[in-house]
This record gives sequence, structure tokens and C-alpha cells, in this order.
Amino acid sequence: MNTRKTSRGRLSINLDALRSNYRLLQDKVGQGCRVAAVLKADAYGLGAVTVGRALLEEGCETFFVACLDEALELRAAFKDVRIAILNGFYESEADLFVQHDLIPVLGSFMEVEGYKALGVKHGRALPAFLKFNTRMNRLGFGSVETQEMLSDLSMLDGIDVRCVMSHFACADEVDHPMVQMQFELFNEVAVHFPAAEKSLCNSFGIFRSDEYHFDMVRPGMALYGLNPTPETDNPMQQVINLDLPIIRVRMVYDGAHVGYGATYRFERGSWLATVSAGYADGLHWAQGNEGAFFWKGYKCPIRGRLSMDLTTVDLSVVPEGERPKPGDFLEVIGPHQSAAEFGKSGGGFDYEVLTSLSGRYERIYTKC
Amino acid sequence: MNTRKTSRGRLSINLDALRSNYRLLQDKVGQGCRVAAVLKADAYGLGAVTVGRALLEEGCETFFVACLDEALELRAAFKDVRIAILNGFYESEADLFVQHDLIPVLGSFMEVEGYKALGVKHGRALPAFLKFNTRMNRLGFGSVETQEMLSDLSMLDGIDVRCVMSHFACADEVDHPMVQMQFELFNEVAVHFPAAEKSLCNSFGIFRSDEYHFDMVRPGMALYGLNPTPETDNPMQQVINLDLPIIRVRMVYDGAHVGYGATYRFERGSWLATVSAGYADGLHWAQGNEGAFFWKGYKCPIRGRLSMDLTTVDLSVVPEGERPKPGDFLEVIGPHQSAAEFGKSGGGFDYEVLTSLSGRYERIYTKC
Repeated sequence: MNTRKTSRGRLSINLDALRSNYRLLQDKVGQGCRVAAVLKADAYGLGAVTVGRALLEEGCETFFVACLDEALELRAAFKDVRIAILNGFYESEADLFVQHDLIPVLGSFMEVEGYKALGVKHGRALPAFLKFNTRMNRLGFGSVETQEMLSDLSMLDGIDVRCVMSHFACADEVDHPMVQMQFELFNEVAVHFPAAEKSLCNSFGIFRSDEYHFDMVRPGMALYGLNPTPETDNPMQQVINLDLPIIRVRMVYDGAHVGYGATYRFERGSWLATVSAGYADGLHWAQGNEGAFFWKGYKCPIRGRLSMDLTTVDLSVVPEGERPKPGDFLEVIGPHQSAAEFGKSGGGFDYEVLTSLSGRYERIYTKC
Repeated sequence: MNTRKTSRGRLSINLDALRSNYRLLQDKVGQGCRVAAVLKADAYGLGAVTVGRALLEEGCETFFVACLDEALELRAAFKDVRIAILNGFYESEADLFVQHDLIPVLGSFMEVEGYKALGVKHGRALPAFLKFNTRMNRLGFGSVETQEMLSDLSMLDGIDVRCVMSHFACADEVDHPMVQMQFELFNEVAVHFPAAEKSLCNSFGIFRSDEYHFDMVRPGMALYGLNPTPETDNPMQQVINLDLPIIRVRMVYDGAHVGYGATYRFERGSWLATVSAGYADGLHWAQGNEGAFFWKGYKCPIRGRLSMDLTTVDLSVVPEGERPKPGDFLEVIGPHQSAAEFGKSGGGFDYEVLTSLSGRYERIYTKC
């Protein structure tokens, strides 16, 4: 009897590949530079605690997260690592920063004042990273604030400034003029903080110039196997595989439609597989009639709209003797299709594929 | 001191509106028809157990989910409700169906054989729903299989067929020819099962014709406040509000850019707010430079690309005296923008907004 074997998609995360990626980045920046790890958004969907544990074993000492909840999850798992919160300091949650030894990345005078007050309350200068806006205009001290601060650094008295940072906006593009400009703007500020670490690079920046590395780099996507040099081959190892189970195979006749809105019409009789995952699982609705899954290397295009929990793909290209059956798994991300390739189908974005990965998948951590 | 108050987005779910929507649907279909509730994908992102509890109090007796894990979560919370699994029966998980009194929706001979074998093992006819494919070509018995089954219903001996079902593909469109065709195809099959309940309607179908209601309807989106009659005003009450906290407000000069890729250029000096949520929180990358948030009714367009954890919006339209500050919350879904309106910005899909709602949000269940 050939009944289905399971109903869940399988998300495999190769921890050896992750660790290898970390070592590649450490080799790239050299011994004088620390490789921190960006673990926000649950380590881009791969599981922050498990990823964090693997990276600690490689010597990683600093984790970056976006928000307090993420920091608390990591602190509960790891006693000694340094944890910095990129989205900054929040008054209502202030005492938790001290209690759990968390470091805010401060980027406004408002935060500086609030954090100084917290230090007064606790009777010591508390550790902070400072973020300077170098024209990305998202977070960080703006140019006017920066000038004001540099003209009177005593406004930082009462804060233990451990690190000064900025963030590249366009380092994914070769020779984008903003990259060098951001470097120069950051450098002008950084020299005023001789005792603090300096950090500028995201994954892309690491590969643009050794000059950008400073004391610490902050890769995220490169650790997880995405390509930090989009203009050329990916130097990183692929970390994740996503495979989805077929729950139904059927033949449809010419003229048949499939899915909501009957948006796809078959011009000839075709074999169709229905897979047990849809846009509620982090596949994107925009991939309807656009993306593809793979079976033994055969590219099987998505037909019709994605449903919330189901996706239908065309098996016509697969020779009859090799046709998959219910219970077989189709490759979504794997040897034949990278996360970036799948993410971009339907006009999407490669990182978004990772951060949308479903809680309904079975997560399997593998070592080679 | 005006330090930020919190770092988390607030997802408010109005349980009174949900219950009112349930009652409206029950009134619509009348006493002879049961209103089941589709709670898959964590009740479209709103929290399956809490939503389920509220609907049980309204008299709901049947829940539909997509997969086994979702069924087990609900069964752990509710002892007596009927729970059916739309994505069917899986051999490896077979005993759990019996152990937790779960009903598979069977749609292939393969499943029928497997489920009959399970009944033999347990010494009784186990309950099942049957799903017939009426040219949506996603799940369910196909036309050839259906003819074979109807010519010899003894193949179902050993299964307690409680309900026969099909599913509308195009009921969101007024007078789409496929709707009536699916009804007729279903009706032809349904008459062969006089003892079983019949069920055809999703949310849209409920509003298309009373003739389609049969014994049970299966709304999802209408319960959660989306519009089951897209051609006219939404008869349902809005159930969710999503508000995101500002963590930074800044002025940018004319010629400035914002965000990754520097994709937006300000033609004049503008006020910009950075909000603590991005595409890892279920906002969609495609909404960069497309979507908008609201502040006191003022529409504030998203500028630049969305980041993973941050989004920047233009406050220029807000009068100076009313400008929001860090700690204030912008409306994403609420009185000025429905989930559907927000979801469709950037070419997205309204349901997808719900099923992507972030685990990083604070969920607040309200009653009026």
C-alpha cells in the first residue's frame, strides 16, 4: 500500500555548512577582526538558539538581534555571549536590559538620555553601542546630532560606549558610490572614539573592501548561505533545504483549470501534483503560476494560484517511469534551486523566503 | 522624557466582532444549516485556540484545519468539538486520528484503502468526510474515480461517511460560470449519499446562493472580517487591528535617500518615521515604496524598501503640531485601512497578510 508517509514539509538546516560559512568569513576578515552574528528574526528563520550554539562553538562572541524578546530568548540559552539589540532602547523595558546584561544600540538623543537615567538608577555606566546614520536614514544619529555630539562628547558621560557602528545601504551593488561615501562618513565619526570598537560591515560589505572591516563585522545572510557577492558565484555553502510532501497526484485533461480563480488552463492532458504547503507556510502568493519545485532534477512549474495550505505543480516534464507518488517530497530549496532563486520567483526577495519559513515545517538540523 | 514606550507591534483581535460575524453567517444560512469554522493556519493568524473558544460559545460544533498538528493543538484544548483535517489522511500518523478522535477528509482511493485498514485494526468503521473534485483539481476524488465509486459504493464499506464535500474555486466572482457548474457536479454526487451531511460553501459561496448551503458551510475569511462579497460593501465586521511603534523620527533633506538600495529619493525636505517591524513580521517586501500606514487618519506612504525588522514612512502630510513621536503607534490595519486594502498594496493578497502575521507582535484579544 502506498499511502502518504507524512503531512509536513521538511526544513533541513545544515549546521556544518553554517559553521563553515562562519569560518570562511573569519578567514576573510582576519584575526584582528571579530565576526559577530546577526540572529534576528529567529536567525532568519533557521532557529536562533540552535544557530547560536553552533556559532559559539566556532568562537563567535557577539550576537545581534532586532528586539528585546529575541535577546531574552538567547540570553536564556547562553550565559556569557554578548547580545546587542539593533532596534535600540525602550524605556518600558529598561530594567530588563540590566537584569539580562543586554546592550542597546543607541541612535537618538532620546535613547541616550533614557539610557543614562537607567545607569544612574543602577549606579554605574551601562554598556552601549552607538549607531551613526550615514545617509541610509533608517536608524542612528543624524548628521546634525552627530556634530552636536562630537562637539561635546561629555553628553555621553555615564554611558560605557563599547562600540560605534553604521550600516551599509547599497553594498550589494559593486562600486555603488554610496558605499565608499558611507565608509568615509563613518570613518570621520569613528576616529573620535579611540577606545571603542568600530563596526560597519554587513555580509555584502565584508566582500567589498578589507578597509571596511574595522574591529567587528556583522554578517547575517552570508552565514545562512545567501550570496554576499551577487555579481559572481556564491562563495558560501548552502545551509538550508526545503522539501514538501506530495499529497495527491492526478491527471487533468486538456482545457482543465486548476486552483482558485481558475487562472491556469492546461492546453493538453497533464500530470499534476498537489503539495501540502501554501502561502501560510511562507511560499508567496505571488509565486502562483511563477515559481517551480523540482523532482529528481526535473523542473515542475507551479500551476494556478497558491492556496493557503496547498500548491499544485505540473509533472508533465517527468518521464512516466519516474513520476513521483503521494508521500514523495519535492525539492523547493536544494541542489537544483537556491533560496535566492526560489525567493525571486514571482518578483520576491531572497531573504524574505527565509524569514517566512513556516512553523508547520519539521525542522531537521543535520551535520554532514 | 519622551523615551519609547515599547518595541513590539500590537495585533488586536476583537472577539466580539468575530462572534458577531459568526452569528451573521448563521442567520444567513438559517437553522437547517450548520456553520463550521475553518481554523487552519492558526485561524488565519489570529490564534486558533482563542478563536475556537469564542466560536464554541456561539454554538459552533465543527472545526476544519489543514494538517494533523493543527488538529492536535485544538483537540488538546477542546474535548468535544468535531475536528476535520482538510489535507487528508497520512499513514505514518494513522493511530493519532483514532487516539484523538480526528476526522480525515479523504479524497483518493489510496487514502480510502489506508483508512479502511485503520478501521480494521481498530475493529470499527471510523468516521470520515469525503471530498469530491469538481474541477478545481487540487484535492478530492476525480471524475473517473467518482464514477467508479458511485458504481460500487461497497468500496466504502468499513468507513463511516459522515459528510461529502467539494470546494468552490471561483465563488469570489459574481456569476462566474464555474460556480454553478461546480454546484451541479457536486449535487450529482451528493444525492448518492442520503445519510451523509453535504457541504460545499466557503465564505464566498455562502453569499452566492441559498441553494449552495446544503447542511454545513465552512467559512474562514468571512469570520475574520475579510469581505466575502468583493463586488460590494463588506457585510462582516473588521476583526483585527495592527499598530506598529515608531522608534525614530527624523528630518531628511531634499535629495536624501532612504533604506537599502537607496530606491527612494526625497525631492524636498521631509519628516520620516522608522517603525519597528519589517518583512520578517509579515509586512511584504513588495510593499516597499507601495504601501502606507496611517497616523490620525493621515496617510503616510512607505518610503524605500522594507527592511527585515524596520519600515520607514513619510510623515510630510501630517501637520507639524500633530506629528507623532517615538513610542507612538501607526495604524497598519484599522479604521482607515482594512486588511484587504493593506494586503493588496504592492500587488499582494489579502489573506496572505493575515497568515503572515508575526510572532513578534503582542497579541491583544479585546471585547467591545
